[in-house]
Amino acid sequence: MQFKKTNSSYFLRIDKGEEIISSIENITVDENIQSGAIVGIGALTEVTLGYFDRKQKKYLRRTFNDIYEMLSFSGNISYLDDKPIVHAHVILGQPDYTLIGGHLFSGVVAVTGEVYIQTFKDKFNRQLNPEFDLNLLAF
Amino acid sequence: MQFKKTNSSYFLRIDKGEEIISSIENITVDENIQSGAIVGIGALTEVTLGYFDRKQKKYLRRTFNDIYEMLSFSGNISYLDDKPIVHAHVILGQPDYTLIGGHLFSGVVAVTGEVYIQTFKDKFNRQLNPEFDLNLLAF
Amino acid sequence: MQFKKTNSSYFLRIDKGEEIISSIENITVDENIQSGAIVGIGALTEVTLGYFDRKQKKYLRRTFNDIYEMLSFSGNISYLDDKPIVHAHVILGQPDYTLIGGHLFSGVVAVTGEVYIQTFKDKFNRQLNPEFDLNLLAF
Repeated sequence: MQFKKTNSSYFLRIDKGEEIISSIENITVDENIQSGAIVGIGALTEVTLGYFDRKQKKYLRRTFNDIYEMLSFSGNISYLDDKPIVHAHVILGQPDYTLIGGHLFSGVVAVTGEVYIQTFKDKFNRQLNPEFDLNLLAF
Repeated sequence: MQFKKTNSSYFLRIDKGEEIISSIENITVDENIQSGAIVGIGALTEVTLGYFDRKQKKYLRRTFNDIYEMLSFSGNISYLDDKPIVHAHVILGQPDYTLIGGHLFSGVVAVTGEVYIQTFKDKFNRQLNPEFDLNLLAF
Repeated sequence: MQFKKTNSSYFLRIDKGEEIISSIENITVDENIQSGAIVGIGALTEVTLGYFDRKQKKYLRRTFNDIYEMLSFSGNISYLDDKPIVHAHVILGQPDYTLIGGHLFSGVVAVTGEVYIQTFKDKFNRQLNPEFDLNLLAF
């Protein structure tokens, strides 16, 4: 990964073979980022997607192993118990131009990942919400 | 809804049961926001989507009542006759990871909505465009 | 095209009949924009989408001639040999609310295009990467 820092924002180039969520969590620690909004494009493979089943209070998961255009990648940076959390959703393009997508557990950059982070000064924290058994933002 | 204000931006947590478009229009009034760009993720239900039929000069509409991952939510804040207008498009993920989407008339947050607004100082206004019978941005 | 400039950002209204990628490349030159992140919504027609085939080191391409809701448009502005490059991905909505998408080679605005650009002071350059035969960001 390489990056440019400009004022309160970062622009990342995540490289082939690097996992996208952990790459952003790593720069969050290295650069002491307190919170942020994320958008990006690129290409991914070995992508584990989730769909939150509200009745079962858990994510369904499935891993997709082809190479996909990363058509939309958006989310945010916050903390849970002092550990950075990237919460992101992704939309993937297939060779026939049809799409799949979901909550992004993990994905490996297949060609390049071009990701923009707008940081904020305040730290955003998450807290367990018992209704859903999910860690939601706690402002 | 809860929110954090940081410089010229807002980060919202919209809660289960709250309608997303009117929630953002309400904070626009309460915080005297003049204009802005919006991106967000979360989960929605009772979603009314639109597709603008240019020949008929009107939106087709359909309401979808399952629970969906909100994979992409993007748009902007402007005004029409001093009333705030959130113009947003949405992409929704289903349990089999296939997608639907359209112009977002309304949607109820199903779990949480995490929405980032970058505000601008200038007020953006809309004006009726007779060719399409739509209220387009008038800079 | 009309636009508002506010601090380090631009908000564009791209009009019916204007090609979206070249419109943004033109304003990049006219306003001497060094780099930026882009998001937008609107409606497109005559859209040429791409999927990068990593084995063949080339894009598959197909042109879609109906009118589509532009549900997600995201990317960035950089330079290759002093020529501005808009790298963008797009997701398009059809009348039945199903979607297609891909790398965006070109698309003509069908009704309106509402596009937000967050600029940065540093110039971003691209360089040929021989592994993929693609021009990747070189920070």
